[in-house]
Amino acid sequence: MEANKKTTIVLFSGDYDKAMAAFIIANGAAAYDHDVTIFFTFWGLNTLRKDGSAPTNKGMLERMFGWMMPRGANKLGLSKMHMAGMGPKMIKHVIRKHNALTLPQLIELAQEQGVKLVACTMTMDLLGLRREELIEDLELGGVATYLGEASDGNVNLFI
Amino acid sequence: MEANKKTTIVLFSGDYDKAMAAFIIANGAAAYDHDVTIFFTFWGLNTLRKDGSAPTNKGMLERMFGWMMPRGANKLGLSKMHMAGMGPKMIKHVIRKHNALTLPQLIELAQEQGVKLVACTMTMDLLGLRREELIEDLELGGVATYLGEASDGNVNLFI
Amino acid sequence: MEANKKTTIVLFSGDYDKAMAAFIIANGAAAYDHDVTIFFTFWGLNTLRKDGSAPTNKGMLERMFGWMMPRGANKLGLSKMHMAGMGPKMIKHVIRKHNALTLPQLIELAQEQGVKLVACTMTMDLLGLRREELIEDLELGGVATYLGEASDGNVNLFI
Repeated sequence: MEANKKTTIVLFSGDYDKAMAAFIIANGAAAYDHDVTIFFTFWGLNTLRKDGSAPTNKGMLERMFGWMMPRGANKLGLSKMHMAGMGPKMIKHVIRKHNALTLPQLIELAQEQGVKLVACTMTMDLLGLRREELIEDLELGGVATYLGEASDGNVNLFI
Repeated sequence: MEANKKTTIVLFSGDYDKAMAAFIIANGAAAYDHDVTIFFTFWGLNTLRKDGSAPTNKGMLERMFGWMMPRGANKLGLSKMHMAGMGPKMIKHVIRKHNALTLPQLIELAQEQGVKLVACTMTMDLLGLRREELIEDLELGGVATYLGEASDGNVNLFI
Repeated sequence: MEANKKTTIVLFSGDYDKAMAAFIIANGAAAYDHDVTIFFTFWGLNTLRKDGSAPTNKGMLERMFGWMMPRGANKLGLSKMHMAGMGPKMIKHVIRKHNALTLPQLIELAQEQGVKLVACTMTMDLLGLRREELIEDLELGGVATYLGEASDGNVNLFI
């Protein structure tokens, strides 16, 4: 029996549009029976934040990062035409108008299709993000986890 | 007979410099007999817009996107040092000075070398771009088209 | 004997955080015995600039690029939350606090591990960067050099 093809994506960016592109490719690949893994690193981790209050036993700098970074997929900005938040509203409007999926829906679909979501532990350390601030059904991992998957990957992307 | 090697590029970005990098790699790969495909998605589609007037039977939001986005390769900004348009002028100046190719020339060369240019239909829907607003000799396709090519690709990049 | 796996990275971006990500992946891959090459093109080349004075026999435009672009890894800005330079300071602070490696240290480690660093000659021409303005132990190359490596690569990324 032939092994499934493999797609891996490093999601470095914390932009709504880039995260959408990552999840559209991931969901497409999963639909074609690829084993798919998305590694969330640096600002990409904000995609996975829950929209709740954070633990209070954080250092000052960690709290500052926590305040300044968007809390979850629905709060991300755009890479272009952000226009003080008007751009993301317009994009979400046209997504609904065309019955396309919003980013939170794309994430849910990915989880249903068995796309593996891996949060970068080094970034969590640096930015002071705790496991309980992130959504459920994640794995934690580092660059070794990533390379283990990517070195057998058919499609490897950095977004 | 051995199959050609394959290079695929997702051009997500609408920046002049990133589009240049994409086309330089694509043209290089084509010169080395790779089968090359570039998928234009999100802001990358602006690279392919014609510089003319758009159809008038568009909705308000589609017209707004149309007005705000650059009309074609020669109107794109830079990812860094845009400096109110001075950056792109400087880059184009040094390109001419060094007898290098401008972005419109790189696109023409790619088409002559048989690089396949695919416009993302989902983006066209979302941003309200019509086929007749884009340059000739394009194919239209979605994430399935992309994955079909990329899963056999030797070099797959997201730019 | 089996050949080593191969990782290639195009570093297009001149952002501190993206360069960190590139070098973390490169160092990880080298630790797992991959042959690793990083191609520095466009703004990515600023990562390799020395922090000294430049040759004076440059044209006006080349001098302008020289003045405006950051001189070396330690001067790069962030892709997000630059906040007039406060972002990079915060990142460097948390890096030290967590005993992680700064970008200049990551570059040194890469060179010790035999990661091949290749400066894009076309970019050097366009932006007027001379060999003597860049750090030691580099190779020079173009798109052909890149494609030669990448077409056999297991992991190919554009950052």
